[in-house]
Amino acid sequence: MIRPDMATMLAFIATDAAVSPADLQNCLSRAVDASFNRITVDGDTSTNDACVLVATGAAAPDPLVPGDAQYEALCAAVTEVCVELAQAIVRDGEGATRFVTVAVEQGASSAECLQVAYTIAHSPLVKTAVFAGDPNWGRILAAVGRAGICELDLEAVRIYLDEVCIVRDGGRDPDYTEADGQRVMGRDELTIRVLLGRGTCAEQVWTCDLSYDYVKINAEYRT
Amino acid sequence: MIRPDMATMLAFIATDAAVSPADLQNCLSRAVDASFNRITVDGDTSTNDACVLVATGAAAPDPLVPGDAQYEALCAAVTEVCVELAQAIVRDGEGATRFVTVAVEQGASSAECLQVAYTIAHSPLVKTAVFAGDPNWGRILAAVGRAGICELDLEAVRIYLDEVCIVRDGGRDPDYTEADGQRVMGRDELTIRVLLGRGTCAEQVWTCDLSYDYVKINAEYRT
Repeated sequence: MIRPDMATMLAFIATDAAVSPADLQNCLSRAVDASFNRITVDGDTSTNDACVLVATGAAAPDPLVPGDAQYEALCAAVTEVCVELAQAIVRDGEGATRFVTVAVEQGASSAECLQVAYTIAHSPLVKTAVFAGDPNWGRILAAVGRAGICELDLEAVRIYLDEVCIVRDGGRDPDYTEADGQRVMGRDELTIRVLLGRGTCAEQVWTCDLSYDYVKINAEYRT
Repeated sequence: MIRPDMATMLAFIATDAAVSPADLQNCLSRAVDASFNRITVDGDTSTNDACVLVATGAAAPDPLVPGDAQYEALCAAVTEVCVELAQAIVRDGEGATRFVTVAVEQGASSAECLQVAYTIAHSPLVKTAVFAGDPNWGRILAAVGRAGICELDLEAVRIYLDEVCIVRDGGRDPDYTEADGQRVMGRDELTIRVLLGRGTCAEQVWTCDLSYDYVKINAEYRT
């Protein structure tokens, strides 16, 4: 039951910076959007979560304010902590054996990038292929195709497994070899990267594979 | 890879009725919408399907026309055939051990009924619970809650497993017993019925559970 909005989790983060409540909330919202709200194990959202950010002000009396380099540094640091915690949730996902970054680039909007990324991240076929270490480009391309992007030009789409291009010009990259794909799929962590060829927006989400143990943990939790 | 729009399938249906091409297409569209386009195994749409309906006209020279009782009877018969074929696809779904009807009633629109039905039917947590024979009402209610229905009043929602009410007034039905739930979940075929308490629209979809064999079939298909 992990697809935050947020996850089944309680996160507590503290800083000794001085920041006003509103500026601190802005900092936290930015961090959470780029971390806890970008992970999914199975698409099933949980029923109770919280992420709390506390600023004591012990470090200095003057509050940091948006626009200041120090405020931006604080935001970057809080985001870094949130990303690390969020990724840890995925790594600890039910039955997870591989950690997958789904990066969607060259979208016309952030929304469509997320739509494609979550369709891939939730596809049981993609997730079982990742579990099997199977570089099944057709399943990834099919997920892109069914993501509901209006007037997507499949000819312009390129898909990479880490550094290996597997799809371009509407089909399997002619230079792609199965050995290259399997080399990437043998890794514990890998990136499925999709270039939509429609714009300059980009988003990424983190997910894991779908294994026998996912079924076991969620089917036999009472036994 | 089964969630039609349509499924990975070729369906051929023939009748000796006389019907014009346009009226036959209308008949087929109605039938397909109520059958092949209401099933899902895993949410992953397939890449090639077809459902072809042929009318030879051998039975009688005069074409049936919409509004006629005979045309409606033909539509009902074609729909019945399509439903039987569509349900057979689900029963034959990868690793399927249980056949599940998800019926959503009292919706404000057909679209929101389908939204709720597919969210339940695609929920890995609901599907693994069905595999386990586990009457986990919380997972079903959580799926209803995250289906994205605007201003849903959870207090008005009721959920049944076949004849057994499991959720009402926003939580577990006080009269519900685990024994009742397990009796239903022990069946090979069952209905998850959700009453939204918002209107008079209704839709149903058919799906199956998520088992070890789903993972096996989709992860080890090359070995």
